[in-house]
Amino acid sequence: MEQDLSKALTLAVLLVTLAAGVAQAADPAKAATNDPLASWNQGSAKKAIVDFVANATKEGSPGFVPHPERIAVFDNDGTLWAEQPMYFQFAFALDRVKALAPQHPEWQTQEPFASLLKGDVKAALAGGERAVVQLMMATHAGTTTAEFEKIVRDWIAAAKHPKTGRPFTEMVYQPMLELLGFLRANGFKTYIVSGGGVEFMRPWAERVYGVPPEQVIGSSIRTKFELRDGTPVLVRLPEIDFVDDGPGKPVGIQTHIGRRPVAAFGNSDGDLQMLQWTAAGPGPRFCLIVRHTDADREWAYDRASHIGRLDKGLDEAAARGWTVVDMKSDWRRVFPFEKE
Amino acid sequence: MEQDLSKALTLAVLLVTLAAGVAQAADPAKAATNDPLASWNQGSAKKAIVDFVANATKEGSPGFVPHPERIAVFDNDGTLWAEQPMYFQFAFALDRVKALAPQHPEWQTQEPFASLLKGDVKAALAGGERAVVQLMMATHAGTTTAEFEKIVRDWIAAAKHPKTGRPFTEMVYQPMLELLGFLRANGFKTYIVSGGGVEFMRPWAERVYGVPPEQVIGSSIRTKFELRDGTPVLVRLPEIDFVDDGPGKPVGIQTHIGRRPVAAFGNSDGDLQMLQWTAAGPGPRFCLIVRHTDADREWAYDRASHIGRLDKGLDEAAARGWTVVDMKSDWRRVFPFEKE
Repeated sequence: MEQDLSKALTLAVLLVTLAAGVAQAADPAKAATNDPLASWNQGSAKKAIVDFVANATKEGSPGFVPHPERIAVFDNDGTLWAEQPMYFQFAFALDRVKALAPQHPEWQTQEPFASLLKGDVKAALAGGERAVVQLMMATHAGTTTAEFEKIVRDWIAAAKHPKTGRPFTEMVYQPMLELLGFLRANGFKTYIVSGGGVEFMRPWAERVYGVPPEQVIGSSIRTKFELRDGTPVLVRLPEIDFVDDGPGKPVGIQTHIGRRPVAAFGNSDGDLQMLQWTAAGPGPRFCLIVRHTDADREWAYDRASHIGRLDKGLDEAAARGWTVVDMKSDWRRVFPFEKE
Repeated sequence: MEQDLSKALTLAVLLVTLAAGVAQAADPAKAATNDPLASWNQGSAKKAIVDFVANATKEGSPGFVPHPERIAVFDNDGTLWAEQPMYFQFAFALDRVKALAPQHPEWQTQEPFASLLKGDVKAALAGGERAVVQLMMATHAGTTTAEFEKIVRDWIAAAKHPKTGRPFTEMVYQPMLELLGFLRANGFKTYIVSGGGVEFMRPWAERVYGVPPEQVIGSSIRTKFELRDGTPVLVRLPEIDFVDDGPGKPVGIQTHIGRRPVAAFGNSDGDLQMLQWTAAGPGPRFCLIVRHTDADREWAYDRASHIGRLDKGLDEAAARGWTVVDMKSDWRRVFPFEKE
């Protein structure tokens, strides 16, 4: 059955490809813009992607990847959307603290909340990891999953990036959107594997990235099933369940997918183990690191950054021949809202 | 993009359906056997399934379910394969204890192992839940994920059911295999949501049920990423991570799928919360309980059984109008190996 479906899907992809071909032939003026990776400049990174996919889909090629094995995993912050000047989920947590403050008079004197409410993010984070965990627990727990989903939807619809004034969901990388689509058009299942909260990403990942909720893997807090007046709810508890970062990423991948990806895309040392795990499998493999080199159109940071530090990853990429994207030279356009 | 793919898939399903129709027309003698649910007797259960699917796939129908929402979840033990005279994973654990005993001389005197090695299962389980957990930890941990997968593959290829002498993977219900295929042919994603260990099911679930590893949800122990001589491995630790049973099932569903299923299939009170969670969503819903009523072809047990007890579930099914399958009268054939 699964095989029939796979054949049907291959047939469908073929039909869509043919249809696209016809459309292209009918309007030669448009042919140039039908490049599925139009926002990528010609160069070694683009060539590596195109070659990998061409081989993966060519039966008989040594680079061929059978349909069910076409699993591609993507980090989110700094790989699919921007992460400067702070992780966007942190911006969400800050706004939640302000919204919840009237119900928590004790926060006026209790850290890290007191400093945050005075607008002093730096002092709030002086408490280190403990402060961040306290903040996450306070702002992400205590609701049902359905209530939390609505809170995230409402926030993401209204919140604006502090530098560009754009909605956060426009701060996504146009070349990576094209890459996600290109892989899917070639039979890959695309997954997000992020240190961010899984229930923070799911409400908008399908609309923004075309990645359905069941293909989003992230950090989580525990939930508990309850009947409230006979209605089943899942209540979000103030307890860490899983941290999907660094060595947690391969664990999250195995837990959720149960097979090793053939392609992995990241931008920081938090993605290193995911890239190593992907690279170590048998047969064709593709590992790519997005390097932030464009201070004009985006940001420039790597080895010394406290957000999205890329240090060991750069060394390992060089040693192992992973593809490194130089944002400044490899990307013709960074954000969808940029003028052509 | 996802929408294009969805359209392409719908088109492909249509083409396959048309092709099947042509094949059927060409050989009228075979027409009767082209019923996708041929092992189901005509009756209210079969009619309920067929009606639900017909409506779910008919745009404009009040029962229509958009493609991405077509998520169906299945319990495994007692719903897709037999669970008598013991959960098959327990048979696996027993065989593992015997295989590992030479490396554990202390097991000769230490319970629950000592009793098990003498063949006294009842005495071994006198220690209750603690004994079962000890057994699972000892037999499921201490390997890498790749090693454990091989152990399961080797065992499942050789082990025989104590009553029928058949491989466990033939102790699956033919009507349920047809149901899985029927749902998938109509655009449903089929998931297993089982109390069994997720890494025990994944190595054979795709071959036996057509369910890929990423659509298997189960109980788990913790794993840890390590570099061994530079090679990344995931090591299985003797710590419970998640128990996917009873109220754990909706939690597992939310963690892995991130949206509520529209159809759920179970057989015991361990599936009750999964059925309640599925039933409580908006729009069309389908909940089904397999009732073991056939002592001749399978087993007959429900309210008083210690394996697969079905007590509250029967009451709730009656109160809420869920479909209850009477195995004896609703299934023309139970196992694939039965003669027609």
